Amino acid sequence: DPSLKVFTLNSNKALAAEIAQNIGISLGKNSVMRFSDGEVQINIEESIRGCDVYLIQSTSAPANEHLMELLIMIDALKRASARTINVVMPYYGYARQDRKARAREPITAKLVANLLEKAGATRLLTLDLHATQIQGFFDIPVDQLMGVPILSTYFESKGLEDIVVVSPDHGGVVRARKMADRLKAPIAIIDKRRPEPNVAEVMNIVGHIEGKTAIIIDDIIDTAGTITLAANALIEQGAKEVYACCTHPVLSGPAIERIRHSKIKELVVTNTIALKDGQQGANITQLSVAPLMAEAIIRVHEDASVSTLFN
Amino acid sequence: DPSLKVFTLNSNKALAAEIAQNIGISLGKNSVMRFSDGEVQINIEESIRGCDVYLIQSTSAPANEHLMELLIMIDALKRASARTINVVMPYYGYARQDRKARAREPITAKLVANLLEKAGATRLLTLDLHATQIQGFFDIPVDQLMGVPILSTYFESKGLEDIVVVSPDHGGVVRARKMADRLKAPIAIIDKRRPEPNVAEVMNIVGHIEGKTAIIIDDIIDTAGTITLAANALIEQGAKEVYACCTHPVLSGPAIERIRHSKIKELVVTNTIALKDGQQGANITQLSVAPLMAEAIIRVHEDASVSTLFN
Ligand SMILES: Nc1ncnc2c1ncn2[C@@H]1O[C@H](COP(=O)(O)O)[C@@H](O)[C@H]1O
Ligand SMILES: Nc1ncnc2c1ncn2[C@@H]1O[C@H](COP(=O)(O)O)[C@@H](O)[C@H]1O
Repeated sequence: DPSLKVFTLNSNKALAAEIAQNIGISLGKNSVMRFSDGEVQINIEESIRGCDVYLIQSTSAPANEHLMELLIMIDALKRASARTINVVMPYYGYARQDRKARAREPITAKLVANLLEKAGATRLLTLDLHATQIQGFFDIPVDQLMGVPILSTYFESKGLEDIVVVSPDHGGVVRARKMADRLKAPIAIIDKRRPEPNVAEVMNIVGHIEGKTAIIIDDIIDTAGTITLAANALIEQGAKEVYACCTHPVLSGPAIERIRHSKIKELVVTNTIALKDGQQGANITQLSVAPLMAEAIIRVHEDASVSTLFN
Repeated sequence: DPSLKVFTLNSNKALAAEIAQNIGISLGKNSVMRFSDGEVQINIEESIRGCDVYLIQSTSAPANEHLMELLIMIDALKRASARTINVVMPYYGYARQDRKARAREPITAKLVANLLEKAGATRLLTLDLHATQIQGFFDIPVDQLMGVPILSTYFESKGLEDIVVVSPDHGGVVRARKMADRLKAPIAIIDKRRPEPNVAEVMNIVGHIEGKTAIIIDDIIDTAGTITLAANALIEQGAKEVYACCTHPVLSGPAIERIRHSKIKELVVTNTIALKDGQQGANITQLSVAPLMAEAIIRVHEDASVSTLFN
């Protein structure tokens, strides 16, 4: 179908190439460079007039650079008469700033939604939003894919026995429940509590973990503080071994160091965010979301029913 | 007037402090930091409910970082019930991407205008836009200040004699004419031409420059290629000495090196963009726009006539 075009920018070229390959087309020709002063310079090097463009870009770090590349490319596509501009954002940056937790805070996740729409996006395709409510920040259609099936399938293939799926906090219980259903396993929840002010937090574990293989699941692993403390608490309180997994490996600051020195046997992540040099070392397995995203793009493009893929 | 508040972000704190001092108030309290993964974290640390906020930020390099700080701060101010959000942008980044020079280019200067309005800006106060047409990219009021008076006053105070004001290209003639009027001097124009393809450009000078003190004026000096070639051509063709000046010292890449090795006796710029470490060396004089911007803020706030200040 010549009206389907897939373009990408600088955040995750390997994933984009894999998605295009899975669809069975070549990536659209464009360049994304910087002028001498650092401003983004974009050139679209083929006609896209009347086409349905799927533009792949995660707003992972550096988030501001990747977001501006995306907005400028959307502007260029709009002015070059694309029929639809479908933003494919495997990782939605700024998703954690999704509410005013304190007075006078911005709600940057909503700002980003407004900016994407204002620039000219006509649809958003994304994966595991930090909060599902972010869908409602948009007035354009939003399709959300799920990482749980990919992560679960991998753990199934390992043939682990006597599993318990662990949510590292109360916010992640729904996600843990979904994985537990797929693995036919029970769940446990880490219930962090500070008994008194200025006393260390207590890692209380709700559920049976003794002698079991624990799999901790989260959506984002950023500095890895939560997940490594949880892993160590699980081992101390009798778990046999601990795996950890997440969809989005943000892995900033001390993350790799913490994971290396933790009781985590293997960390399983997806490639919504490209791993940086030196991050591959810490026993990290990266699974590809490319087949899933390619299928979603094809289904959106064919306007077929997408209910089994989307969340 | 307690309803007038001035805030700033990270691009140009020294200028903002000077503007606040000229107005006679303290800068508003806020912090602009980065989360571990590099996302912008903004906290406004005082109430601004019902206030007229003037937010000072140049979108100079790193342009994307400074622009995102600005948009996120506007979002926070809006949600904290500011009455008006007046963006004070001494330097408007991306101004050179103001038209489609080639097929399928973005018009990023217009995108930036849309993003500022969408975020919640209610007015823009800026200085020497690369193209005055950018005012028309906005639906909110735009006030544009001029750098020429500040630069001219400085050259007047030097007591130079037999001056000619030089425009480095045809696009800058109007600006050169304004300065020449103030200095009661004639103008000359550098008329670059390539006689045949693959032959070096010829620097043809239109106007009398022999034995004169030439002052080249531009709005932006970026890599300094144009201005240093112009300076050298002026000396070769008989000018006595050459000064150069501009409003916005972008000074990227080889700029400082080129200026150091050029025939420019002194480069005069303003502080719309803060000079970086090591840039002060190359015989650069920096004039402050703070008194001008402070006066403009006061007049806008008083809703007084601003016709003599604004362009
Ligand atoms: N990039 C970020 N890194 C760390 N914390 C963040 C980031 N963005 C927002 N937050 C904070 O994370 C909290 C929301 O996280 P959560 O409770 O997991 O939804 C809010 O208090 C935010 O201020
Ligand atoms: N940041 C930048 N650095 C260098 N050139 C740019 C920049 N932004 C836009 N341009 C180009 O500069 C040209 C416009 O410059 P001008 O003719 O001086 O208005 C256009 O062809 C743009 O592609």
